Amino acid sequence: MRGRGTGSEHDVLERIRRAFGGQRLRTKRDGLRSEAGSRFLSLEMGDDAALVSATPGYEIVLTCDWFLEGTHFLRDKHPADAAGWKCLARAVSDIAAMGAAPRCFLLSLALPRELAAAWLDDFLVGLRRAAGRFGCSLAGGDTTERREVLINVTVVGEVRRGRDLRRSGARPGDLIYVSGRLGEAELGLRLLRERKRGLSPRDSRLRKQLYPKPRLELGRWLSEKRVPSAMMDLSDGLSTDLCRLCEASGVGAVIESDLLPSVGVTRLERNRGVDPLRLALHGGDDYELLFTVPKSKAARLPRALCGVAITRTGEVTQTREVIVSDDNGRSRVLEPRGWDPFRKSK
Amino acid sequence: MRGRGTGSEHDVLERIRRAFGGQRLRTKRDGLRSEAGSRFLSLEMGDDAALVSATPGYEIVLTCDWFLEGTHFLRDKHPADAAGWKCLARAVSDIAAMGAAPRCFLLSLALPRELAAAWLDDFLVGLRRAAGRFGCSLAGGDTTERREVLINVTVVGEVRRGRDLRRSGARPGDLIYVSGRLGEAELGLRLLRERKRGLSPRDSRLRKQLYPKPRLELGRWLSEKRVPSAMMDLSDGLSTDLCRLCEASGVGAVIESDLLPSVGVTRLERNRGVDPLRLALHGGDDYELLFTVPKSKAARLPRALCGVAITRTGEVTQTREVIVSDDNGRSRVLEPRGWDPFRKSK
Repeated sequence: MRGRGTGSEHDVLERIRRAFGGQRLRTKRDGLRSEAGSRFLSLEMGDDAALVSATPGYEIVLTCDWFLEGTHFLRDKHPADAAGWKCLARAVSDIAAMGAAPRCFLLSLALPRELAAAWLDDFLVGLRRAAGRFGCSLAGGDTTERREVLINVTVVGEVRRGRDLRRSGARPGDLIYVSGRLGEAELGLRLLRERKRGLSPRDSRLRKQLYPKPRLELGRWLSEKRVPSAMMDLSDGLSTDLCRLCEASGVGAVIESDLLPSVGVTRLERNRGVDPLRLALHGGDDYELLFTVPKSKAARLPRALCGVAITRTGEVTQTREVIVSDDNGRSRVLEPRGWDPFRKSK
Repeated sequence: MRGRGTGSEHDVLERIRRAFGGQRLRTKRDGLRSEAGSRFLSLEMGDDAALVSATPGYEIVLTCDWFLEGTHFLRDKHPADAAGWKCLARAVSDIAAMGAAPRCFLLSLALPRELAAAWLDDFLVGLRRAAGRFGCSLAGGDTTERREVLINVTVVGEVRRGRDLRRSGARPGDLIYVSGRLGEAELGLRLLRERKRGLSPRDSRLRKQLYPKPRLELGRWLSEKRVPSAMMDLSDGLSTDLCRLCEASGVGAVIESDLLPSVGVTRLERNRGVDPLRLALHGGDDYELLFTVPKSKAARLPRALCGVAITRTGEVTQTREVIVSDDNGRSRVLEPRGWDPFRKSK
């Protein structure tokens, strides 16, 4: 963590250290070890850089993710602890998508002076909870002052050599699977925006928008069993992310819309035009896994793992197009209409 | 690099890929290797995360750094290619400060739509030049749209196990050294702000502000020879950074102001109140190395290494105070008045 020692930046760093104090991050030389990733971290925040020891036979996996006020979260809608949880969860989801396990993370945090006390403490409560849940220690970072809350999280993970899962391995004939339900986070965002009366941050319909759970156990199981031919996480919506997987693999796909595990909506919402299929196809922020499996391996897949449903939703094709076929037997090209920051504001 | 494949975000990623195309980043499986860090990178941008193989006997060094428009650079003063160079150089400086060698980096870039063409291309020219110079390959990142240019760079380096240099090892009696000249970057910033007529971005007086050179060779030499007891880089100004080193080591220091290698100023500037000592003590952005050496090892230090001067400027003391003594024999406590983002705007 840069900027140790003096001035008011010091206060921000002290709050971060206090929040993560229970993790007892120390240098190896001090003889203490962190709760999570103990073999991994040898130098905690406080120096110019963090030191990490790789496990023999494993490869290091690296990812970074923006989490910006107004772009990726709404400060007046997302509670501070949810921002803390989610900024780490979405970066960890990229680690899950490689079949890897997270080890430690760097936090870059810019925030207004007036948020550097109560808001920051709540943010750190959520961040610490996520770090504990995902087994991912705070290793360092950078802090500065800014008019808006800007966050960037780098996560370091590990995967056994040769067991990483990539986007590029899908082959025609492979079956397409997704975990969980799709569109839940997008519906949660709509409910948040509408400020539904009596909707608590703990409401189950907001849970996936506020406190998403990266599919770490499922990702690791799939990697260890070598079942998928390709995998990625669903962060920007199925229509956008499936197109990316197909492009990386040089293939196409057919999705059967009646197989899609779409978010449940109330009759009232349906009457008001909320379409579960649209949410499932284009809604972002779900952090479920999308993966393809050769037919010969499909029988090895359970219907659910650690309580997360695994659903077949289509098949990989040779033609470089992504098609969605509906329950009346009609087909149409699926345009990528998920989240693209340079096309629209969310 | 997240967000591959579709929409207009695709164009931004394509520009980045084109700019770094000469590095021929490919997966190991494809049989091609990157120019720099070839043993190191096994999966380039284009998947959810980057894969990195650690060298046996080495530890991974990790650092991340904000580089924000208006806070760390001025878009109307810093040319785009200087922004590209500097955002990487300052993060690499943290790696140099550990005695490590940089290997690869992740680029998180948020920028306004109207900068996503010419400005971005110029930015990438500077970034690529820096990446080549520092031997540091682009491994991945994240892009998004934003009203202002926001950059976060994570650098991954390596250091032979047990050879890393930390802030915490200074002992009373050790001598204090700095590399290069101090205050040059701060003076360069003043000249930039004043828009001096006829001042080209290539002017030598702006060089350190626009195109700083992290002291990689010196850092590695010091680490290999095991000369310093503690080391860090000077990013926020000597007064602030020396206080940090002293705090981490539990010691104090005396700096002799007449020994300080201060920036040269013209008579005109001096008459206008520009004080080289103040610039050397409190000016930020120099990215020189600050290190302490036990007296028994001081004879091993050359006066310069790879063209960079090495200057003794003081001594570590037991009293937990940082003192500056001037050439008239007067002493005063040196307050940390360097760069603190939560105290002032730069």
